[in-house]
Formats: sequence, structure tokens, C-alpha cells
Amino acid sequence: MSELTVSFGLKVREQRKLKKLSQERLALLCNIDRSYMGRIERGEVNITLEKIYEIARALEIDTKELI
Amino acid sequence: MSELTVSFGLKVREQRKLKKLSQERLALLCNIDRSYMGRIERGEVNITLEKIYEIARALEIDTKELI
Repeated sequence: MSELTVSFGLKVREQRKLKKLSQERLALLCNIDRSYMGRIERGEVNITLEKIYEIARALEIDTKELI
Repeated sequence: MSELTVSFGLKVREQRKLKKLSQERLALLCNIDRSYMGRIERGEVNITLEKIYEIARALEIDTKELI
């Protein structure tokens, strides 16, 4: 957990809410476990590039918008 | 190894050469093992957000420029 992962998680949450998706729905779209998605949004995960991309794709945004 | 990690690795290599840094020097600046930096540049690593940030910082560029 760091400033960076927390900032990333907040952006995911913000974009998810803008898209009116539940955490469960987004997790499903990304093929990520829901509890893991919760940890990502809380900034507890040092996420990998592939997963960043999966989340951006599910949110229909550019990866750059999450970084 | 995927299109995504290969594309990331190529961007790292390109930016490193622009900055006239050896792979060894960049690895040292990022506190990453040199052979691991080689694997990153070849797109063999599903790199984490923290390391993406470390590399961008060492290259003195925005993280967005590597994604």
C-alpha cells in the first residue's frame, strides 16, 4: 500500500461510479475476484500492467486515465 | 508475455536510449536487477504499478508516457 496504489484505487472507484457499475459487476467484467477488486480500490494491491489494462477495458476508458 | 508487456518494454527501451542510459545504469537507478530489466524491455514481465512508477521516475518522464 502506497500513495501510488491508493491514488490508482481511487481513480478506479471514481470511474466505476461514473459508469454506474457495482464493484461486483466491474469485478465480473475484469475476471477479478470481487474481494480482490475491493482491495484494489482501497489501494492495497500493487497491481500489474495486465490487470490495469483489463480494468481500463472494462470501464471503456484509456489506461492512461487510471495512472 | 503479451502485446501489452512487449509494447511497454519497447517504450522503456526507447526512452532509455533517448536519455542515453545503459540498461545497467537504468536498472541501478530503479533498484532493479539488470537481468530483470532486460526481461522487462523484452516484454517478458507483467510489471507492477510500483515498478512502472520507479522506471518512469528514473527516466524523468511521466508514467503515462510508458503506458
